[in-house]
Amino acid sequence: MKLNDRGLLVVVSGPSGVGKGTVRKALFEMPKHNLTYSVSMTTRKQRPGEKDGVDYYFVSKEEFLKRVEEGKFLEHAEFVGNYYGTPLDKVNERLEDGQEVVLEIEVEGALQVKKKVPDCVMIFIVPPGKEALYQRLRKRGTESEDVIEQRIEKANREFKLAKYYDYIVVNDEVSNAADRIMAIIRAEHAKTARSIHKYMELIGEDEE
Amino acid sequence: MKLNDRGLLVVVSGPSGVGKGTVRKALFEMPKHNLTYSVSMTTRKQRPGEKDGVDYYFVSKEEFLKRVEEGKFLEHAEFVGNYYGTPLDKVNERLEDGQEVVLEIEVEGALQVKKKVPDCVMIFIVPPGKEALYQRLRKRGTESEDVIEQRIEKANREFKLAKYYDYIVVNDEVSNAADRIMAIIRAEHAKTARSIHKYMELIGEDEE
Repeated sequence: MKLNDRGLLVVVSGPSGVGKGTVRKALFEMPKHNLTYSVSMTTRKQRPGEKDGVDYYFVSKEEFLKRVEEGKFLEHAEFVGNYYGTPLDKVNERLEDGQEVVLEIEVEGALQVKKKVPDCVMIFIVPPGKEALYQRLRKRGTESEDVIEQRIEKANREFKLAKYYDYIVVNDEVSNAADRIMAIIRAEHAKTARSIHKYMELIGEDEE
Repeated sequence: MKLNDRGLLVVVSGPSGVGKGTVRKALFEMPKHNLTYSVSMTTRKQRPGEKDGVDYYFVSKEEFLKRVEEGKFLEHAEFVGNYYGTPLDKVNERLEDGQEVVLEIEVEGALQVKKKVPDCVMIFIVPPGKEALYQRLRKRGTESEDVIEQRIEKANREFKLAKYYDYIVVNDEVSNAADRIMAIIRAEHAKTARSIHKYMELIGEDEE
């Protein structure tokens, strides 16, 4: 029995190359989860086979920027001439419906989300050590040493943002990291701040 | 890999009759736990078969009261002419050793602990509903209606103390309640406030 029925907005972020995507995937493969993800909105052209509302919500640039002005995105960014954003209303619908919404996003986007939804759960994924991350960044592709150095510098800047998050989860093993996140979600539901209203209702008392 | 090596002080409390003892027992029966309990100190006479340092630490009333004055107890109380208390130094030794220390105590004692160890994890066990608790209090013994009424009144007063706790855990099923507490302990270890120091060390940065 959960004491609060509203789902949690879970932000999974961390430095570039830490394996956020793999951890998110492992989360969604866990048995009996109640997790859902948010479909992004984009101004990029719909490709053959892509479905509106499934792969993305496809909108015009004009429509997108109007929504930005109206504060209708949890977070948004521009990437090679196209806009991408997480629609606030869609996320809220799922939360109200009692589903947990997981956003796997870059650190800049994550800090935007925290401002819009202060009661979201901010999780910072970290590597077991700096060297492990550097190795991963090097292995990733065939880029020049310059590009790799830039990535390492970016990761080093991102490392320092851990303090803005609620939890730090070490990605030593993907399944361990996913387990820790599930434990965090369970614990967050039990937090007094989230459950006191429902509890007072349950025991038939007016909150003082 | 845990980011902080120090154990957690976990206070399991809740209204009379909610089944704190049963939940604590289920916790200690879980596989691969790292939980330990604290041996209480008492002024009551050592009974045959009881071992000093195992069942209790047995001390004189004089010694006990001296320790109370020196602030050496996490919490203490008098019960039918004898004193009982949780020694702070013994708890700290285990925490430093990386063990989680679980205290299963009454609500008054729990609030004393919170004052002494502000970073303890305060868990309030609640019944799935008021009626369930009343039934349990009635079934407990063969006491008169008067005694039962007093118990119900006490539970009603205790219900309202939930707001001073970090977590509210519903004891709908003992195993569920124990699972929730284990999730809370895992999540608490991942909390940024507890792990940021170790993390900064790991990535080789001075904390700003």
